[in-house]
Amino acid sequence: MDYISLSEKVFKNEKRFVSRAISIIESGNSESAQLLSLLHKRTGNSYRIGITGPPGAGKSTLTNQLTKQFRKDNLKVGIIAVDPTSPFTGGALLGDRVRMSEIGSDEGVFIRSMATRGSLGGLSKKTIDAADVLDAAGYDVIIFETVGVGQSELDIAKAADTTIVVLVPESGDAIQAMKAGLMEIADMFVVNKSDRPGSENAITSLNTILMMREHNAESWLPPIVKAVASENKGINDIINEIQRHREYLESTNLILKKREANSKSRIKEIVYDIIASEIWNRKNEEDLEDSVSDVVTGKLSPYNLANQIINNFKSNL
Amino acid sequence: MDYISLSEKVFKNEKRFVSRAISIIESGNSESAQLLSLLHKRTGNSYRIGITGPPGAGKSTLTNQLTKQFRKDNLKVGIIAVDPTSPFTGGALLGDRVRMSEIGSDEGVFIRSMATRGSLGGLSKKTIDAADVLDAAGYDVIIFETVGVGQSELDIAKAADTTIVVLVPESGDAIQAMKAGLMEIADMFVVNKSDRPGSENAITSLNTILMMREHNAESWLPPIVKAVASENKGINDIINEIQRHREYLESTNLILKKREANSKSRIKEIVYDIIASEIWNRKNEEDLEDSVSDVVTGKLSPYNLANQIINNFKSNL
Repeated sequence: MDYISLSEKVFKNEKRFVSRAISIIESGNSESAQLLSLLHKRTGNSYRIGITGPPGAGKSTLTNQLTKQFRKDNLKVGIIAVDPTSPFTGGALLGDRVRMSEIGSDEGVFIRSMATRGSLGGLSKKTIDAADVLDAAGYDVIIFETVGVGQSELDIAKAADTTIVVLVPESGDAIQAMKAGLMEIADMFVVNKSDRPGSENAITSLNTILMMREHNAESWLPPIVKAVASENKGINDIINEIQRHREYLESTNLILKKREANSKSRIKEIVYDIIASEIWNRKNEEDLEDSVSDVVTGKLSPYNLANQIINNFKSNL
Repeated sequence: MDYISLSEKVFKNEKRFVSRAISIIESGNSESAQLLSLLHKRTGNSYRIGITGPPGAGKSTLTNQLTKQFRKDNLKVGIIAVDPTSPFTGGALLGDRVRMSEIGSDEGVFIRSMATRGSLGGLSKKTIDAADVLDAAGYDVIIFETVGVGQSELDIAKAADTTIVVLVPESGDAIQAMKAGLMEIADMFVVNKSDRPGSENAITSLNTILMMREHNAESWLPPIVKAVASENKGINDIINEIQRHREYLESTNLILKKREANSKSRIKEIVYDIIASEIWNRKNEEDLEDSVSDVVTGKLSPYNLANQIINNFKSNL
């Protein structure tokens, strides 16, 4: 099937073809750019929510409950899981998978997992491209579920309009370790499993960190919401806070600025991919192969070799 | 001071200037390439050890004990900590910092922490460049301490000749979550704090995973060493296994192949940095700025804009 026909079927949300479009993107096929260009004109209508946090925080259960709630409002929900511990990607317990199948069989829900095993290279780009496919297919809400540890995963979370960082009362160490990264991306904190001991302490230490960052009367202060996702507690509060954040972004026009910033880093990544594929042609790969032993032994500096390769590339344009 | 004089002082291991050289690299100053080219010709003599694992596994304590042992053999040791939870970088408890000061005041030891807060971009490159400075300054052993969660940290660990993955008996979940990544980089596993319950289980599950991977009679099977680093238990076993791995790498000539592979990815990163700084001149940044809102609204595909920018860049060469 050519890409024009495929894109038409994506616009009609024919799930089989939505899947196929994402697979083409995931394969890293160089022609996928053509497909994405066709799909792109129908994007920009979905609201994107990032859900991240350490393994075991209950991100999938929360995704599940939020999805059920969105469905009650008749919103179509696309879920992209890039979390190796998520039941969507096959990392979790049987019980979770059973729970997932509740929403998995719903016509208005599309669930897709992206491979994280092996190399992470290009993962964030492919994930955001996959979200564009779902956007073009008419999903109103897109949820990215990622485990908040790696740079790629943080990049994905940043690509969302609203990013929710999910923690549990025991996450103290994780909070400390990921402080800078989490603070940078969180629009909301959810302290899940808040019926466990220590939840008040967790909230206090989050508040302390939040107070330390610069803010003024106009800036968004990430709310901290208590939840027990497995018992559907706190889900409405989270939905309300998402709505409140969305209204904040829209009234300040920050939603456009945020999306523009995301588009910029995305375009830079695309530029890099194209240039890299042109530079690393067979001749330059062979030159690198031939000269690299001189670099290891100290005869040739990696900086000199890099410049040589760039000059080759330019003189052949 | 010009770079030639600075490099001479680095060759003499004048610590103040070793520090300054690393700071120049860390600043991302574009002239740092010139300094590195000067230093490069004296590199290739140090043995590089990566120590990685989840927060709280005891990586710093292990680094400390290994360093004391290497010092007994009169080897000079350079330590580069890129772990936000390491006492070297300021993340850990007072007790750890006190322990660190034992080796910190030793003339034959150089300790440097690399910033991980904020953006991780370029971190692995800068860290490997910093190791070249220490190599040129005559350090026999260089230890990279990283927290094994992000891609940058894994890249750093991979840049070592011998990579040690440190776990604790409770690391079961971490083992599962990081399985692919850990297996790819580990030349040795240390089950630290092995006096705690569950250490035999941890070893069994590691063994199970190890047996699943492809191997033959010639391939290196990562040993699993039990240790209690805080009590100096198992340190000699670890040193012996490092030595055995080094002999394996040298006898099979894999050490060269490994260093060549690392050099190659490093050169590719350098090429990318140079090209990126040329592409993203003011004109192209402005074009991106002007057109990005059309991308957000779906009028212009990010792929088309990327190609436009590349064509601008080429036509101006």
